[in-house]
Amino acid sequence: MIPSKEEVTTAYNRVSPFVHKTPVFTSNLLNGLAEAELYFKCENFQKMGAFKMRGAINAIQQLSKDQKKAGVVTHSSGNFAQALSLAAKNLGVKAYIVMPSNAPQVKKEAVKGYGGIITESQPTLAAREQEANRIQSETGATFIHPSNNTDVILGQGTAAIELLKKHSDLDYILTPLGGGGLIAGTALAAHYMTSTCKVIGGEPFEADDAWRSLQSGKIETNETANTIADGLRTNLGDKNFPIINELVTEIIRVEEAEITAAMRLIWERMKIIVEPSSAVPLAAVLKKKDFFRNKKIGIIISGGNVDLENLPF
Amino acid sequence: MIPSKEEVTTAYNRVSPFVHKTPVFTSNLLNGLAEAELYFKCENFQKMGAFKMRGAINAIQQLSKDQKKAGVVTHSSGNFAQALSLAAKNLGVKAYIVMPSNAPQVKKEAVKGYGGIITESQPTLAAREQEANRIQSETGATFIHPSNNTDVILGQGTAAIELLKKHSDLDYILTPLGGGGLIAGTALAAHYMTSTCKVIGGEPFEADDAWRSLQSGKIETNETANTIADGLRTNLGDKNFPIINELVTEIIRVEEAEITAAMRLIWERMKIIVEPSSAVPLAAVLKKKDFFRNKKIGIIISGGNVDLENLPF
Repeated sequence: MIPSKEEVTTAYNRVSPFVHKTPVFTSNLLNGLAEAELYFKCENFQKMGAFKMRGAINAIQQLSKDQKKAGVVTHSSGNFAQALSLAAKNLGVKAYIVMPSNAPQVKKEAVKGYGGIITESQPTLAAREQEANRIQSETGATFIHPSNNTDVILGQGTAAIELLKKHSDLDYILTPLGGGGLIAGTALAAHYMTSTCKVIGGEPFEADDAWRSLQSGKIETNETANTIADGLRTNLGDKNFPIINELVTEIIRVEEAEITAAMRLIWERMKIIVEPSSAVPLAAVLKKKDFFRNKKIGIIISGGNVDLENLPF
Repeated sequence: MIPSKEEVTTAYNRVSPFVHKTPVFTSNLLNGLAEAELYFKCENFQKMGAFKMRGAINAIQQLSKDQKKAGVVTHSSGNFAQALSLAAKNLGVKAYIVMPSNAPQVKKEAVKGYGGIITESQPTLAAREQEANRIQSETGATFIHPSNNTDVILGQGTAAIELLKKHSDLDYILTPLGGGGLIAGTALAAHYMTSTCKVIGGEPFEADDAWRSLQSGKIETNETANTIADGLRTNLGDKNFPIINELVTEIIRVEEAEITAAMRLIWERMKIIVEPSSAVPLAAVLKKKDFFRNKKIGIIISGGNVDLENLPF
């Protein structure tokens, strides 16, 4: 069930030539606030502005020649739509993107800009899946799930590998937890690259399906997900949950106000633009200050694609 | 009148241990838009969030032991208030900061946080100067002007030295142009470190005193300065104007809408937070695209201290 060390390593070698080795930022002020050492892996500076580029590039490369010829398809209104479009373009593959008709124009433009072929659907999950199925059967394109796909998971883990190659003595790595691809990949990286680094997820109370899933031992879902961290509204899947269940130590839940406050700290003090989802791990560290005091903590800043017209401050 | 190469070099050695060697960012997308190669020297990541730290640290170090004991004083509601406070703290010197009574609370807090001793004055230039004079005569503190001071100018030039050490073949370096300290220091750096790199200023039409001063050959002033680039509302002085007059090739003026659009491009595409002033050089490059096409251009991103409650988008 759990991918092997070799799979993790070969994914890293496969992904590296196609992505930015993003910088690791530190902030004396935030270290002072947390009374810990924080290392921010800045995937907001990744191509298309988020870590999702990594998983997309890994998944497409794993396809056969014939599969590549037929193209790939996904449904997403968020970062994965852009990631799959750009990754496919880089690899000379067609990308069909199903987007809900009410997706913001700026997101549609971004996907188009990266060469994605957009099909609009009614804005329900059922309609999106149906449209993706139709495209699959008509074109022979391979469906790539944004988070519940082993090659996507292995790709997302390469951010943590880069971080651990620079800072091998981290006590913890924290990631935001939405669909589960990033944290599953990160947990695999820490598991095989270190003997002590633990991986912890940060999750909004408003979308705490993963926290409940770890409690119950089976995949729980969000009935509603009314969180500002729009990247974290999705549910876990059968590919990533077993990895998370086995390798993730803990999930810390945070309030909406804590997310906004942490986001504001990052913007004002680090002078970088990060999505609300990216602020969830810092919110978790500040919430559990006694637990994290004096530890060395890696934080994956997942992305920086925000709507400047619609900021929480 | 013009400082020597040795003065420029020794300032660099004096300042370096006390400041961050800020990174140089590039963006394929912005290069594509400008049809040129742009190298952004990110002083928004400098200590206290702006290049002004460099000039403050250089100026204080040039004081005698007795002068240091008596402290330094300036009047500023902007970045130099924070810069002088933090630089003085690092060097174990008292900093008296005269701030207008209507300065935003957040700026007062920042100065206090860096250990500056605030005196409030009526919000006129005359009142600020009078208060600074009073502090000088009562405490013996040395007045440090934010931009019209040779040691400040030499300190500000160290950002360009760092940039040119990394990218020695730049055709141009552009800086925003307000009080004139940054561009004067940058022009000195380019003059002594390269044989071909030209320095160009970006200035809002709304505060084009420097453009008019270069035309007339004497210091002109702004009657009003109704620009979003709040760091650029100040006037030139007798220390920096001669350097600018001799070494700056050209000043390009830009409209307010061009500044906001360039700022938005930097935020959205580079995922970094920059002040409106910092967007002026990019606005100038995009405005004079034919002139800059295919050139290698350094841009000093002057700072990242913005009020998130009061954004232009």
